Amino acid sequence: MVDVATLVDQAREGRPRAVARLISLVENAAPQLREVMAALTPYTGQAYTVGLTGSPGVGKSTSTSALVTAYRRLGKRVGVLAVDPSSPFSGGALLGDRVRMQEHATDPEVFIRSMATRGHLGGLSWSAPQALRVLDGAGCDVILVETVGVGQSEVEIAAQADTTVVLLAPGMGDGIQAAKAGILEIGDLFVVNKADRDGADATARELNHMLGLGEARQAGDWRPPIVKTVAAREQGVDEVVEALEKHRAWLAETGELAARRTRRAAQEVEAITLAALRARIGDLRGDRHLQSLAERVALGDLDPYSAADQLIADLTS
Amino acid sequence: MVDVATLVDQAREGRPRAVARLISLVENAAPQLREVMAALTPYTGQAYTVGLTGSPGVGKSTSTSALVTAYRRLGKRVGVLAVDPSSPFSGGALLGDRVRMQEHATDPEVFIRSMATRGHLGGLSWSAPQALRVLDGAGCDVILVETVGVGQSEVEIAAQADTTVVLLAPGMGDGIQAAKAGILEIGDLFVVNKADRDGADATARELNHMLGLGEARQAGDWRPPIVKTVAAREQGVDEVVEALEKHRAWLAETGELAARRTRRAAQEVEAITLAALRARIGDLRGDRHLQSLAERVALGDLDPYSAADQLIADLTS
Repeated sequence: MVDVATLVDQAREGRPRAVARLISLVENAAPQLREVMAALTPYTGQAYTVGLTGSPGVGKSTSTSALVTAYRRLGKRVGVLAVDPSSPFSGGALLGDRVRMQEHATDPEVFIRSMATRGHLGGLSWSAPQALRVLDGAGCDVILVETVGVGQSEVEIAAQADTTVVLLAPGMGDGIQAAKAGILEIGDLFVVNKADRDGADATARELNHMLGLGEARQAGDWRPPIVKTVAAREQGVDEVVEALEKHRAWLAETGELAARRTRRAAQEVEAITLAALRARIGDLRGDRHLQSLAERVALGDLDPYSAADQLIADLTS
Repeated sequence: MVDVATLVDQAREGRPRAVARLISLVENAAPQLREVMAALTPYTGQAYTVGLTGSPGVGKSTSTSALVTAYRRLGKRVGVLAVDPSSPFSGGALLGDRVRMQEHATDPEVFIRSMATRGHLGGLSWSAPQALRVLDGAGCDVILVETVGVGQSEVEIAAQADTTVVLLAPGMGDGIQAAKAGILEIGDLFVVNKADRDGADATARELNHMLGLGEARQAGDWRPPIVKTVAAREQGVDEVVEALEKHRAWLAETGELAARRTRRAAQEVEAITLAALRARIGDLRGDRHLQSLAERVALGDLDPYSAADQLIADLTS
């Protein structure tokens, strides 16, 4: 039996193994999950979370690694959550293509975790926020959430961060693609990576044009900056950190930080509520009353909606 | 505003347009959905439903059409629900590759409907059973549910019928594929279609062998028969109907028919219950209490599980 209080203490001290075990408890929806969340709660709400998204090939992993380096230089404890909604495989191990991340693997102030969420019990809205909560509770100053691919679920995860970074690269027709995926709307900051390649300026210009096409902004509104980087050579990464800190300050000043976090928390509470109600319905499965309701529906003696009304009454009595 | 009682009366009289409109109300989760189900309920529980599944290329559409012909010869009113979980497009129109079905398009005793369920509100467990309920209430004696593809959701739909027919064709290595997809377990009847091709006997033998590998059957257990057909030339189709009627009789004698229908109804009631609870949670979204719970969770003042407990109390008060 895992002693949750001890694990949380050890995670607070920065022991990677304890952090990994806590995330595993979350991922596996372990019986202690509730206890884990209760024990972590007093230490949460501190971390600044940054979501990174973009098409495959734009250099998300390299950019994430470069950001870790930059934040480590500032003395920050950094968490990285690499979320892959298309894969059923999870674990503490680095993903195969995350070679760049390995330079941080031995840094005790960096926690790296890959998380697969396909077919995950409770879905994305449930597992990723709670893993973030573990990293937050473990004292990370900054958490980078990197998503694989640009499907709807990836976009949703990235958009759950305090700040969402959308990465592009020149010559991929990314501006247009991004607009299609509805990704322009969620970007608080745009990074044109691989800026040493031909077309970087054109991509930045096109992006600038598309961002300008939106409705007129009011004074005090955030105008997403566009930063050019060559992440593989760590060029422009300090500028990204600077832009992130500016956005963070803007979020705090305008009250938007609290608003975003409250929205996220509301979604999380809703997801947990729904999972709990689903479990209660499951518990009623062998129940005589549900059985007799179902029999009557099968016979055409009762419509399924009236049966559902009665089942809800059972659940809530 | 649609008058539900009139639509149900017209559907009972066998008017295809009324049936189509009722299914559209189901698909679109119209406000009148509940009224539709209540009005149909007294007329449901009569239809014999047959699910047809199998890999693309085995001739599902042709087989379904041939079965319609055979049941029409017996004077039965027949419903066909072609469910495509991979497509977001629904409607009364026949699917492009359903040319064979067109010979029945003008038959007033045949209702054909294609239904796309990808991303459908409430999911498969919710929409397909209610469409079946419309066809049942409209007085269909037999409803053929044809699924496109053999993914998990297709298998689930096919398995919701009174009798599940698994189609195979020679020379596709289907026996092995079917075993992988867990399709052997759900088959009450196996059809080796395109039996005029080389390898039909080998496919039937292989299938027979695989079915025999299961646990020892007890006396009175159903032994799924294997029927060879050439659906395009309507060969063997009467034997399929004969096998279906035998299975139907077996279901009725053993009480398995009532058991299956009760199980199905229980799933449907559970799905409706969950959708209703989800809607109630949605209704609370602007609510001051959820907002303040979420604020406390965001600040690390309350854990999300305790917040969910309070939300459940709100829902059920």
